[in-house]
Amino acid sequence: MTAGGARGLFITFEGIDGSGKSTQCRLLAEALQKAGRNVVLTREPGGSPGAEEIRRLVLEGDPDRWSAETELLLFMAARRDHLERTIEPALAAGKVVICDRFADSTRMYQGLSRGDLRAAVDQMHALMIGREPDLTLLIDMDPAEGLARAKGRQGKEERFEDFGIGLQEKMRAGFLALAQEFADRFRVVDGARPLDDVAADVRRLADEALEGSRA
Amino acid sequence: MTAGGARGLFITFEGIDGSGKSTQCRLLAEALQKAGRNVVLTREPGGSPGAEEIRRLVLEGDPDRWSAETELLLFMAARRDHLERTIEPALAAGKVVICDRFADSTRMYQGLSRGDLRAAVDQMHALMIGREPDLTLLIDMDPAEGLARAKGRQGKEERFEDFGIGLQEKMRAGFLALAQEFADRFRVVDGARPLDDVAADVRRLADEALEGSRA
Repeated sequence: MTAGGARGLFITFEGIDGSGKSTQCRLLAEALQKAGRNVVLTREPGGSPGAEEIRRLVLEGDPDRWSAETELLLFMAARRDHLERTIEPALAAGKVVICDRFADSTRMYQGLSRGDLRAAVDQMHALMIGREPDLTLLIDMDPAEGLARAKGRQGKEERFEDFGIGLQEKMRAGFLALAQEFADRFRVVDGARPLDDVAADVRRLADEALEGSRA
Repeated sequence: MTAGGARGLFITFEGIDGSGKSTQCRLLAEALQKAGRNVVLTREPGGSPGAEEIRRLVLEGDPDRWSAETELLLFMAARRDHLERTIEPALAAGKVVICDRFADSTRMYQGLSRGDLRAAVDQMHALMIGREPDLTLLIDMDPAEGLARAKGRQGKEERFEDFGIGLQEKMRAGFLALAQEFADRFRVVDGARPLDDVAADVRRLADEALEGSRA
């Protein structure tokens, strides 16, 4: 955990498509704002004007448009811009930054599913990003239910949701393994319960981290 | 030098803006095509449909639009796409690939002028690119003359040409140092002479490399 409340707190949400993490991001941001916190709600890929342009380049179009390696470099470029222009300034101003996906999604999607690039992901992260979250909330979800929820959505950013149930199962297992690898900052929340129950757990874990950052 | 003519030959041109390297690329490609060679003429950043899209993202707009680090990651993404989709297939088919700028420009512009990123450039190159040219022709040019030539051109891709004479002098010295660092593949050509004299030197050096690759 980051020492000193003035340095802000960086909370990320991870999970498979349809896990409800985006909704939980928004609910936590609203709850913390109501409690008087200064909150920045953001997402990846994207989260800054430049990174949103890169996001469009990566997510729209054919699934074969980019190789896993090129996609990884584009995500790293977007993350670097997002970090410089949005995340670091907010943390330096003592704000709570809540981010829907961050480096752990890259460790999973580019490192595990799209190619065997985990070592490259880790080396580039160390070289060009460096920052890890203070708290990462993994919204865990049965893949079949997650996929059904994801397919209920509309839009043209479908590249990653087209890979189907096999990918979702691999990703769920991968995220749970990642939660063990980075056990100091990961907390696993059961996302298959009613929205309010999940949100209550998320809020409790965020409050604990905020308490810890002030200590 | 690459062994075996069937594996193709990868020739890159480097130099400061206005050195005439783009013209020399074209002249060499035409000459080798007339001599019966199968030639692919390409450029960086760009050289494949995806990389050209990234090029537009990087080169258009405000000079402060991207930090040196984000710019480096975008150039690496463009290079990876260019390498996979254009360069490697052409070399595998036994073609001569002539490329206007390649990794050495990144070593200079992102590694030296835009930030102190040379170590990061080298590590990312080793991790995600790997390929070095068989022959690199540095068209050497007095910076004042190069800048005057560059300013005579039009277009909106002006980000790098806006940095002025100080940068051009630093880049010239940097390219000459790089030619020593990679002395096995670099050849320095005096670009301040009449076009045809420069082209004759370029042709002779390319022919030597083509002979070497067949041996």
